[in-house]
Amino acid sequence: MSSAATAPAVAPACAPAPVGPPLPRVDAEQFARLFKALSDPTRLQILSIIEVAPSGEACVCDLTEAFDMTQPAISHHLKILVEAGVLNRNKRGSWVWYSLNPGQLEPVKHLLPKRRLLPIVS
Amino acid sequence: MSSAATAPAVAPACAPAPVGPPLPRVDAEQFARLFKALSDPTRLQILSIIEVAPSGEACVCDLTEAFDMTQPAISHHLKILVEAGVLNRNKRGSWVWYSLNPGQLEPVKHLLPKRRLLPIVS
Repeated sequence: MSSAATAPAVAPACAPAPVGPPLPRVDAEQFARLFKALSDPTRLQILSIIEVAPSGEACVCDLTEAFDMTQPAISHHLKILVEAGVLNRNKRGSWVWYSLNPGQLEPVKHLLPKRRLLPIVS
Repeated sequence: MSSAATAPAVAPACAPAPVGPPLPRVDAEQFARLFKALSDPTRLQILSIIEVAPSGEACVCDLTEAFDMTQPAISHHLKILVEAGVLNRNKRGSWVWYSLNPGQLEPVKHLLPKRRLLPIVS
């Protein structure tokens, strides 16, 4: 008779394998803040519009046209993206233009490949 | 006298420039879910450990050794990463091993360049 039938039901203890130290906490917190800013579908849609804007930037009124949302709601999303370093903010006269911060966003852009295949509305 | 002094204080209306359609909402929601899973510093630290694990995978007990957290807390973070498609889950015997899902995570890995410069603890 096999001894397997009498084997203990309790799982054997796992022997932890050596692993490297994690990413430093301060860096992990910085990246987590960036990802939190990107964890909203409207904010990703805003970024996708600015990414292919002919001038490389967009005004809040350009963006409000594209969404069924109020201008204050769009401005709130823009503020979060600026604070996360994803967007640059450039005030000229009475209006503010927003452009991508390539250094911050470059790695993430690869997540949005389909966007570049869409035609620009003229 | 300059006419600028009598110019109206009200900002002129912004003429919206044509912009392309945003990333489709269904795609934006999918990416937002991914970023939400990555928006926690402990989860990013877990990924950074698995990324350079000698075998390319880690068990929950390996990870619990690296954090001042309980095993259920680590398991909760692992569950979120699996559900987001960032980690693969492989049960062998009584234990479960986790490895990166390269297709899902490749673009994001570039955000963690410093991690690769750290020595692996042996």
